[in-house]
Amino acid sequence: MNAAKTGNFQQLGQLQRVAIAEAQFLPGEILLDRPQQHYLSRVLRLKEGDRFIAMDGQGQWWLAQLSPNPEFATVLESIPVQTELPVPVRLILALPKNGWDEVVRQTTELGVTTLVPVLSDRTVLNPSPNKLDRWRRIAREAAEQSERQIIPTILDLVTFRDYLALPEKPPNRYICVTRTEAPHLLAQVLASQQSPAGLQLGPLEIAVGPEGGWTPAEEEQAIASGFQPVSLGSRILRAVTAPAVALSLVAAALEINPNPNQSILP
Amino acid sequence: MNAAKTGNFQQLGQLQRVAIAEAQFLPGEILLDRPQQHYLSRVLRLKEGDRFIAMDGQGQWWLAQLSPNPEFATVLESIPVQTELPVPVRLILALPKNGWDEVVRQTTELGVTTLVPVLSDRTVLNPSPNKLDRWRRIAREAAEQSERQIIPTILDLVTFRDYLALPEKPPNRYICVTRTEAPHLLAQVLASQQSPAGLQLGPLEIAVGPEGGWTPAEEEQAIASGFQPVSLGSRILRAVTAPAVALSLVAAALEINPNPNQSILP
Repeated sequence: MNAAKTGNFQQLGQLQRVAIAEAQFLPGEILLDRPQQHYLSRVLRLKEGDRFIAMDGQGQWWLAQLSPNPEFATVLESIPVQTELPVPVRLILALPKNGWDEVVRQTTELGVTTLVPVLSDRTVLNPSPNKLDRWRRIAREAAEQSERQIIPTILDLVTFRDYLALPEKPPNRYICVTRTEAPHLLAQVLASQQSPAGLQLGPLEIAVGPEGGWTPAEEEQAIASGFQPVSLGSRILRAVTAPAVALSLVAAALEINPNPNQSILP
Repeated sequence: MNAAKTGNFQQLGQLQRVAIAEAQFLPGEILLDRPQQHYLSRVLRLKEGDRFIAMDGQGQWWLAQLSPNPEFATVLESIPVQTELPVPVRLILALPKNGWDEVVRQTTELGVTTLVPVLSDRTVLNPSPNKLDRWRRIAREAAEQSERQIIPTILDLVTFRDYLALPEKPPNRYICVTRTEAPHLLAQVLASQQSPAGLQLGPLEIAVGPEGGWTPAEEEQAIASGFQPVSLGSRILRAVTAPAVALSLVAAALEINPNPNQSILP
């Protein structure tokens, strides 16, 4: 049973969600910054006594009410909600030439926990720090709109080879490849949920390549670092479509079987 | 074993694919129209003797070679390829306000057979015939790029209620709903594949609503017409993201278990 789907939530679903930083939470109150005050009163046209949902970006939602003093909102109660995936999902993405805004938006809607933009052998783009700020803003907006409890983290840019060289090696790592006989990502994730080790040992990682795919050398290095090669299906997906497809499959596999040790089939 | 993934295909994967109309196929030859001649010789810079793949849009690919006369290409052989889903998938889409180009592109990449644009109670857009032409062109281009064997059909606009009133009622109909306790689309498609009736009785249909979702009256009428309500997960997806998610799940479920009467798990 998912609290996000109860009748209570249908009412809450009418309320606007606003991301509030940890430092703005005072005992029983929220200190609103200028852009938030503007958004609440001018854009949403909320008045004293009107309610909204304050998301702390760390997994908790709070029912809040605008105070007579427009710089403050009163925290009324915490809201039980579960819209996050049962395990963290990290997406390692070679930057496509275009379309990153939409990739960030779609994968945030689909429940990604961390986005790792990487430079690959076939990546031509080296984005400016402004781009990273822009993607983080898009992730925050998409998290609000899709009713996420947390805002995905977008890491700073790193080369794929440097990322592979990191000592941390989670047990469930998948690299999407094309034109090979690799097993399907969905089959792999469903099968891994049947194993006693399950998915509880660490985050699930998926690496998606750029236009033209990963180079054979990158695929080999990834496999040596514990990544299993997987397919996203028989058709060739664009670099901007593949991340959303990978997230759709992983999110659905995790949500139809939230207990990693329980089979989805009788 | 999938012919699209064999070694032979890796070589063919380097060749450009061009959609050719049925009337252009002569015995052993293809009559190229002016735009195709321009595309092959000016854009792709192919010369006499160079090869390309002619897609007839009906499921068959042909290896073709440019003739000395640039108006013709010689048909060398048929190409065994299987990039289509094992059952036809029809997507019934309430038109979102924006983003239809991308919806057509992504769902074509993901294997949709037929797109049915519908007017729903909450649809505001009534697209011009030009828009339909534009979407059909996008579907053709996306089919070429994603190495589909067929080009998805985009039907003329119809109201959702008129569509539901059609006498044809395939056995596997799903309507995506939000904020309810509906079972997950992936779980339903996987489960339906376990049943003896399976998916071979007809096309699989999925209806995806507009911004704000279907109205309760529409959901009721759809359920009365044999649609099963399903969820796409705990988060709220935008109207432009939901179609690609639905197609990702259905395509993957069909591809990991192409035989409807065989379990995916031991």
